[in-house]
Amino acid sequence: MNIKQSSNPRIVIIGGGFAGIALAKKLKNKKVQVVLLDKHNYHTFQPLLYQVATGGLEAGSIAYPIRKVIQEYEDIYFRLTSVKEIDTANKKVITEIGDLSYDYLVIATGSKTNYFGNKEIERNSMAMKTIPQSLNIRSLILENFEQAVLIEDEADRNRLINFVLVGGGPTGVELAGALAEMKKDILQKDYPDLDIAKMEINLIQSGDRILNTMSEKSSQEAEQFLLNLGVKVRKNVRVTNYNGRTITTNTDLTIDTSTLIWTAGVQGAMIDGLDGKSLVKKVKRIRVNQFSQVVGYDAIFAIGDIAMMEIDGFPEGHPMMAQPAIQQGRLLGENLLKLVNKQPMKPFEYKDKGSMATIGRNKAVVDMPPYHFSGIFAWFVWMFVHLFSLIGFKNKAVVFLNWVYNYIRFDREGRLIIRPFKKKSFVTFTSDEV
Amino acid sequence: MNIKQSSNPRIVIIGGGFAGIALAKKLKNKKVQVVLLDKHNYHTFQPLLYQVATGGLEAGSIAYPIRKVIQEYEDIYFRLTSVKEIDTANKKVITEIGDLSYDYLVIATGSKTNYFGNKEIERNSMAMKTIPQSLNIRSLILENFEQAVLIEDEADRNRLINFVLVGGGPTGVELAGALAEMKKDILQKDYPDLDIAKMEINLIQSGDRILNTMSEKSSQEAEQFLLNLGVKVRKNVRVTNYNGRTITTNTDLTIDTSTLIWTAGVQGAMIDGLDGKSLVKKVKRIRVNQFSQVVGYDAIFAIGDIAMMEIDGFPEGHPMMAQPAIQQGRLLGENLLKLVNKQPMKPFEYKDKGSMATIGRNKAVVDMPPYHFSGIFAWFVWMFVHLFSLIGFKNKAVVFLNWVYNYIRFDREGRLIIRPFKKKSFVTFTSDEV
Repeated sequence: MNIKQSSNPRIVIIGGGFAGIALAKKLKNKKVQVVLLDKHNYHTFQPLLYQVATGGLEAGSIAYPIRKVIQEYEDIYFRLTSVKEIDTANKKVITEIGDLSYDYLVIATGSKTNYFGNKEIERNSMAMKTIPQSLNIRSLILENFEQAVLIEDEADRNRLINFVLVGGGPTGVELAGALAEMKKDILQKDYPDLDIAKMEINLIQSGDRILNTMSEKSSQEAEQFLLNLGVKVRKNVRVTNYNGRTITTNTDLTIDTSTLIWTAGVQGAMIDGLDGKSLVKKVKRIRVNQFSQVVGYDAIFAIGDIAMMEIDGFPEGHPMMAQPAIQQGRLLGENLLKLVNKQPMKPFEYKDKGSMATIGRNKAVVDMPPYHFSGIFAWFVWMFVHLFSLIGFKNKAVVFLNWVYNYIRFDREGRLIIRPFKKKSFVTFTSDEV
Repeated sequence: MNIKQSSNPRIVIIGGGFAGIALAKKLKNKKVQVVLLDKHNYHTFQPLLYQVATGGLEAGSIAYPIRKVIQEYEDIYFRLTSVKEIDTANKKVITEIGDLSYDYLVIATGSKTNYFGNKEIERNSMAMKTIPQSLNIRSLILENFEQAVLIEDEADRNRLINFVLVGGGPTGVELAGALAEMKKDILQKDYPDLDIAKMEINLIQSGDRILNTMSEKSSQEAEQFLLNLGVKVRKNVRVTNYNGRTITTNTDLTIDTSTLIWTAGVQGAMIDGLDGKSLVKKVKRIRVNQFSQVVGYDAIFAIGDIAMMEIDGFPEGHPMMAQPAIQQGRLLGENLLKLVNKQPMKPFEYKDKGSMATIGRNKAVVDMPPYHFSGIFAWFVWMFVHLFSLIGFKNKAVVFLNWVYNYIRFDREGRLIIRPFKKKSFVTFTSDEV
C-alpha cells in the first residue's frame, strides 16, 4: 500500500461515513498515524439520498471528497479500496490493494440493505443506501415514464407508473413524500399524454405504524401528511415476494408494479475475520463494550451502524443513524488518544438529539423529547438541521439555493437520465410490446 | 410510438442540442405538430463539459431536462430514443421504439468524435462530447491518482499522472488549462505523498498553432498562458498510434501515458438512409442549401454540426459550434412556418458573434472581429457569455455560485468518483504490480 510506518502508533479506520470521519477529525495532528480506507473517495450525506433519487439535488451536493476533509492533517493516509478480511492474529487488514498492519483497528463500515434472505426480492428491487443506487432509482423512475408514454395496453402502462416503497422508516416516508410532490408538480406537466392520476405511490409497512422509532404522534401525523399527498399507506402488510412484475404479501393484497424500492431493513456491512462470539449474526453487527471495543479484542473497535453496544436502555444497540455514529466516532477519538497515553477511557453515553422526518412541502414531524412538533415549523427545523449538518460551505450553499428554487418554482430540475439504468431491457421490452 | 396525428403537419426533429432546441422554441404553439427525438432526456451545454470532467461543476448544472423546455407547448411530443434510419421513400424515421412518419424532417444530430479511422486510438483513448464521457474522464483522472499513490516503480507511477490531450482546439486548450489549475491548487494538496511535479499535461496539436480557428494573436496568447501554467504545448506533431501505454507520433516524440484524451477531430453524427449525393462522406456531414434543405430532398432539413452549407465564405460549411447551430435552428423555425404557409423561405446568413477560449484562472482570449482582447477582461467576458447562455435560472445560479466558490477557494469539490471508470482494470493492475 506504499505507506511509511512512522514513529506514531497506526490507527486504521475502515469507512469514511459519519462515524469514521468524526473519528478522523478528532485524531487530527495528534501523535498517531491514521490510515483511512473507503471504497468511495467521498463521504456521503445519506439523509438526503432520497432527494438525489427524486431529482431535487445533484449527487455532488451531498458528497464530499474525503481527501479534502484530511487535506491539512499530518501523518494521515487515505486509500481507495475495499477491505476483504481482517487477520486478527497478525493484526493486519487484507484489502484489494494489499495488506496493512495496524496497532489499532476501527471498523466503521456502516450498514447495507437487508432483504432477510429473499434473493428474488433482492434481484428485482432497488436499494437506496449509496449515491450510485440513488442515481439508479432516479434513472429508473424517469425511464419508466418514458416507456409508459409508448405503451397502449393500460395494465402494462399502469404497472410502469405504480411505485411501491417497502419500509415505513424515515427513508421510505421521505421518499414517498418526494415522489408524491413530483407527481403533482412535475410529472403531470412533463407527461401530458399520460393519465397521471393512474400513478400510484404505495408505502408498505409491516408494523401497525410508520416511523415506528418516533413518537406515536409523529407516526400519526406523518401518515396523515402522506395520505393528504395521495400516498397509499398500507400497514400491517409484509411483502413475501416480488418477481419483477407483481408483489405478493402475507395478506390478500397483491400489487402489479415494475418498481419496488426496498427500505425495509438494514444490516451491518460485515467484514470477515472476527470471531463468531463478537458478532450478532442475525443483523450482522459487531458486539462492542461501552468503549466501542469489539468484544474479545483489545485493539479492535467498531463504531456507527455496524456496532452494537448492548447497554442499559439500548438492548439492541443504538439506532442505526447518523447521531450515534458521530457521537461514537468523536468519543473513540478521545479514547484512542487516552489509550495511547495509557490513560483510562471514558464510557459512551448517547445524547439523543431527537429525530425527524419530512413529508413533502412545508411538512415535517420532529421529536425532541420531551417536545414534539410538526407542520411548517418542524419543516424549517428539518431543513436547518440538514443544511447545517452537510460538510462544506459550498454544499450548504448549493443545497440551500436548490431548495429555495425548488420551493418557489415547484420544480426539480435534476430529472436527468445521465446513466440509464434499464436501457437494455427498455429497448427489448418496447420492441416486443409496442 | 403512440403519437396521435393532429390536423397540423408533423415536423420531426432528431436531436435536442443547440440547433434542435432553438428550432423547437420557434415552433412553440404554431400550427404544426412537433415530435422531438433524442437519445438523452436532457439538453447538454457542451462548452462547459471540460469543467464537469475536471470537477469544477456537477453534471446537472450543464444539463437541462428537454421535457421542461417544452412543458407549455401544445401539440408537441418528446420521445427518448435513438434513430436507426430514415426511410425517405415512405417519409418515415425508423427508431428503436418504432417507426414514425413525418411531413418535414429535421436532422440535428450534432457531431461525434472523429478518430480518422484509427481503431486502436479509439479503443484506448477518452472522448469528451457527452456528459457521461466527461464523467468518465473525471473518474479516470482521480482513479489514476489513487492508483499512483500505491505504486513504487517510478516509470509506472509517472505514466499514471502524465496526461496527454490531443487536439489544440478550444476543448483541448480549456481542458489543459483546467488540469493545470487542478495540479497546482488541488492535486498537490490531496496527494502529499506523490511528487506532483512529475504530473505532466501535454497538449498535442498537428498544426503550427493552437486555436487555429481564432486569430493569430489569440493563438499566441493562449499558448503563452498555457506555457505559464506549465502545460507542454507540442505543435506540428501528429499522433500516429496509442496502445494504452505509449503514444507514437510522426516525429521522434513518444510519450508514456495511461491517459489520452482525444479532441482532435469531429465528424457528423450521421444517420443511415440519405442518398450518397447528399453527403460529404469524409466528415460525415450532410450537404444543405442556404435554406438548410438537404440537397436532393424537399422535406428534409439539416442544421447544426451535421449540416454543411457550402456557401460563399464557408467552402467547408460553418464552424461546428453552438452559434451556427442556434442561428440555423432559429431561421429554420421561421422558414418551416413559411413553407407550411406556402411563403418563400429566407436564406441563411451567419452572424459571427466571435469566438473565445479560457485558459485557467483570470485568463481568456476573445476574438470579436474587428476586436481582439485577452487577460482578465476577456475572462470576465467569457464567464458572462457562458453563464448567460446556459438554459434555466437555477443552472445559471448554481454555476455562478460554484465559480465564485472555486475562484475564492482555489478549489473544485466535484472530485468524486461516483461511477468508477476503470475499477476492474485498476484492481487487476494493482494486484499484479503493487
